[in-house]
Amino acid sequence: MRRSVATVCLSGGLVEKMHACAEAGFDGIEVFEPDLVACDHSPEEIRALADRLGLSLDLYQPFRDFEGVDEATLADNLRRAEAKLALMQRLGIDTLLLCSNVASATVPAEDYEEVAAGQLRQLGDLASSYGVRVAYEALAWGAYVDDYRTAWRIVQRADHPAIGICLDSFHILSRGHDPAGIEDIPGERIFFLQLADAPALSMDVLSWSRHHRLFPGEGSFDLAGFLGHVLAAGYDGPLSLEVFNDTFRRTDVRRTATHALRSLVWLEDTVSPRLTPGVPPRGIDFVEVKAEDTTDVEVALGQLGFTFRGRHRTKAVRLWTSGSARVVLNEQQAREEVPHLAAIGVQVDVPEAALARAAELLAPAVHRRTYAAEVPLGAVAAPDGTEVFACPVVEDDAAWVAEFEGGGPDERTAGAVTRVDHVNLAQPWSDFDEAVLFYSAVLGLRADSGTQVAGPHGLVRSQVMRTPDGCVRLPLNLAPDPSAMTAQHVAFACDDVVAVARRALAAGMRFLPVPANYYDDLAARYGLDESRLEELRSLNLLYERDGEAEFVHFYTRTLGEVFLEVVQRIGGYDGYGAGNAPVRLAAQGRA
Amino acid sequence: MRRSVATVCLSGGLVEKMHACAEAGFDGIEVFEPDLVACDHSPEEIRALADRLGLSLDLYQPFRDFEGVDEATLADNLRRAEAKLALMQRLGIDTLLLCSNVASATVPAEDYEEVAAGQLRQLGDLASSYGVRVAYEALAWGAYVDDYRTAWRIVQRADHPAIGICLDSFHILSRGHDPAGIEDIPGERIFFLQLADAPALSMDVLSWSRHHRLFPGEGSFDLAGFLGHVLAAGYDGPLSLEVFNDTFRRTDVRRTATHALRSLVWLEDTVSPRLTPGVPPRGIDFVEVKAEDTTDVEVALGQLGFTFRGRHRTKAVRLWTSGSARVVLNEQQAREEVPHLAAIGVQVDVPEAALARAAELLAPAVHRRTYAAEVPLGAVAAPDGTEVFACPVVEDDAAWVAEFEGGGPDERTAGAVTRVDHVNLAQPWSDFDEAVLFYSAVLGLRADSGTQVAGPHGLVRSQVMRTPDGCVRLPLNLAPDPSAMTAQHVAFACDDVVAVARRALAAGMRFLPVPANYYDDLAARYGLDESRLEELRSLNLLYERDGEAEFVHFYTRTLGEVFLEVVQRIGGYDGYGAGNAPVRLAAQGRA
Repeated sequence: MRRSVATVCLSGGLVEKMHACAEAGFDGIEVFEPDLVACDHSPEEIRALADRLGLSLDLYQPFRDFEGVDEATLADNLRRAEAKLALMQRLGIDTLLLCSNVASATVPAEDYEEVAAGQLRQLGDLASSYGVRVAYEALAWGAYVDDYRTAWRIVQRADHPAIGICLDSFHILSRGHDPAGIEDIPGERIFFLQLADAPALSMDVLSWSRHHRLFPGEGSFDLAGFLGHVLAAGYDGPLSLEVFNDTFRRTDVRRTATHALRSLVWLEDTVSPRLTPGVPPRGIDFVEVKAEDTTDVEVALGQLGFTFRGRHRTKAVRLWTSGSARVVLNEQQAREEVPHLAAIGVQVDVPEAALARAAELLAPAVHRRTYAAEVPLGAVAAPDGTEVFACPVVEDDAAWVAEFEGGGPDERTAGAVTRVDHVNLAQPWSDFDEAVLFYSAVLGLRADSGTQVAGPHGLVRSQVMRTPDGCVRLPLNLAPDPSAMTAQHVAFACDDVVAVARRALAAGMRFLPVPANYYDDLAARYGLDESRLEELRSLNLLYERDGEAEFVHFYTRTLGEVFLEVVQRIGGYDGYGAGNAPVRLAAQGRA
Repeated sequence: MRRSVATVCLSGGLVEKMHACAEAGFDGIEVFEPDLVACDHSPEEIRALADRLGLSLDLYQPFRDFEGVDEATLADNLRRAEAKLALMQRLGIDTLLLCSNVASATVPAEDYEEVAAGQLRQLGDLASSYGVRVAYEALAWGAYVDDYRTAWRIVQRADHPAIGICLDSFHILSRGHDPAGIEDIPGERIFFLQLADAPALSMDVLSWSRHHRLFPGEGSFDLAGFLGHVLAAGYDGPLSLEVFNDTFRRTDVRRTATHALRSLVWLEDTVSPRLTPGVPPRGIDFVEVKAEDTTDVEVALGQLGFTFRGRHRTKAVRLWTSGSARVVLNEQQAREEVPHLAAIGVQVDVPEAALARAAELLAPAVHRRTYAAEVPLGAVAAPDGTEVFACPVVEDDAAWVAEFEGGGPDERTAGAVTRVDHVNLAQPWSDFDEAVLFYSAVLGLRADSGTQVAGPHGLVRSQVMRTPDGCVRLPLNLAPDPSAMTAQHVAFACDDVVAVARRALAAGMRFLPVPANYYDDLAARYGLDESRLEELRSLNLLYERDGEAEFVHFYTRTLGEVFLEVVQRIGGYDGYGAGNAPVRLAAQGRA
């Protein structure tokens, strides 16, 4: 199907927006009137530019407050409409969006549909004479018409070939209206379709709509179900995005355009699968920490019981492992960089298929030099630049481990770290929603419900992306001031966190210190006995309980921009110790 | 009365917060439990620090989910409470905040008050044994108790000297509960009072409370009326602020503490006036533009018909005037600075009184060197650093104009600029709410309803501060990215904007260019006739109509970080052409 986007979704001026949409690969755009009004290009120039870029101008929007008015207002509204119809002729746009009246309607409710239909019929006559058709849309906050079923009754009553309906997922799903009724509308009477997702928020629907819409796949609406009804009705016009969002208004226009198109490609695939199928990953193959000097991380891994497996044959890269937890320390092309997470490898059943799907979803490929006899691993860049490698599933050591020389075998001592439990990825403010879509659409992870954690310098927004079975967990963190607080870390799982902590303490580990007040509060909260408390206190262990399940964990000090955590999940604990995060953030703020 | 603040209002760690509160001048604090838990100082250290700083620890908060539970839960809750009571003894705090149960209450509604009262009585016995009293608070989202009147009935029924009520303006006013009933509660049963303002928002009350509270005077609650009822009841404990706000969690702790205290000083004064009375200013005396080189501004003022009035006798400062519009161009201590607004002078009836009030409201005084025979003008710094001078009211030229030499007399040609209409001040994200309070409390301006304007790089938040008669209007603008867009400007009023624009055009003025599409839209919107349109178009004039009132205005190009506007208000127009702001922002984005 043709893919379109409203220019209001993007930052910049109209001309920049058009270039960005064309570069991203959209087929067309909706021209948002204020973008045209503020633009220094004439309508003829816009039309010619669209031609050159291969973009169709699918819709002119919005025209407001037309129907349900008195005769004098109607006359003025028809005059207003005629000016816009003439403008559309100059632009070469054949569909006008008409929103249901929010301001000037005066007709009493009992006569509204009849009067509005008659007035729409007059508009239809006028529009026809300009070769334009009018798509009538029920705004969720329309004064009288706030339900697509009412709008459709009025359109039927208007009974004019130039008058049809516009469906917008936000206006329908935000009100909880059942979209199944869309199937009762003949497809050719649906003149336009606008798609937007949104988070579940409890606020007035106008503010929700104007500031918090999201691209499909980023919110909580069932857009696949919605689109299914529209397609079942026989609609074959463009799928068009209309997303008012305070963040996307500020982000780079080319980037947002690609992000928007990815959401549409993903949505289409959920309704009628065409992409290479995505399957959730099966585990984390490795984590790469990059820096000019990775010594501090190396020391900490040694204290945590990791084994040095050797240097890479051809690169300034070293490998440490413990069980299936593999940490690659990369000192290549890292001049003046402090330790930070640069890449993760995820194990997938068919790496080639995962990479093909990622490319179909517009994820930029990453190219790293490989040599003969090395295992070639493909990768794509996540929105924040983290490189995500697609690795084959392995029972024991990954094949590429053989490329490392001069280290010892991993002894896999009892109670040691067994695997990577989760990897926290810090996101810039501009990338958060895009990252949610990336990790769900490209990597097949699902979004857990988000949370916010209070730190000493503001609230940290957190959103876990994970597989249903928890074998891959990637919490995304958005700190209010990235320079003020560390949000990137790797958490390792083990079966005996006390043993790992004791060994680390003996090896001279510098734990993140946990204040005594925390343990007093633990005692009050959970009634832990004194010997258990003393064990936790002496090892700087944090504790959280959820019903019968328990979570015990500790942190290293921050090493550059990254820190390490060791966790033990007991009795099926499925969280991340969010209740302890403020204590960690405060301790990191002091360190 | 004693002034207190909850530590949750501020950024940083508990110790930093305590220092900031003491420096600002608070008498006491509420210790927010998570701040203590995350703190590396022992309770004894906190107590001793508070002693040294002269801060009382007025409240320990919050204790949650205690009442209305089954017997087993009650036993555990009493155990939890006892641990906290012991902790309070170490801290030397004698009042515990108990929030109404939101999570664990299981008692049926018809028995709730009876059972809760009995359980509170048990808590009262326990608390008494630790010398602690319990202030019971109805949360707006309490499972059963969400109204202070219900909480008060339960407290009465508990009938225990250690059980009283805590009143929080947010929980009462957000639900629209009538605060008049507070007067029926004996003052000595009101154990604590928490104050917070909030903007009028339509969202779930929990999110509203946790993210959007404001300090008194910054929102839309009638806090003066609320406090009046509490004082009438005989309450004589501390006035304490509890403001959860995402921005204040991020701003500098010392600055927010002063800001918070200012709000409380102002609130007390609205209830029982003690400060030097504030009266709204009577006009704008001057605007100062500062830069290393102010030539571009000088040229533009000349083109707008301003008269050069001369150089200052002792400073690198020049003066241009037109009618009562006086622009001071300051090149002192401005190395490498581009033109920007540095100061405004406002005319007040008694400058000394205005400055005294400002000092009482903790506004920092600004000192400028003056010489013998110069008019001394006092000033204070607004939150964003703009210097605000208190000037005497004058009929004609200000007395200080005589300090300028070598210029000509202002001829005051017909149709020329007559006065300063408004001054737009760009605010950093951290200062916006503080600025609203500053301009209302210190300068006696009132806040008009705020708005948001779409620019090419995001939404610009705007809030007009003004006198009722409009003689002083200061729109505050918050741009999403201050580097990307100009938000500072001076608008001059005139009686014939066409004449001013014609003269400026003849003098070679570089107008901010307005696109032709804008005029096509004007024609459609208002049905203006072609000759009027052509006049507007040829002079880059913008137009807005509000009923019968009209607004016609134009902008200069941006000069450094400032630009100039000339406006004509016709038929009582009272706005700022907000509908044209996106067109201006787009044009500035292209320039």
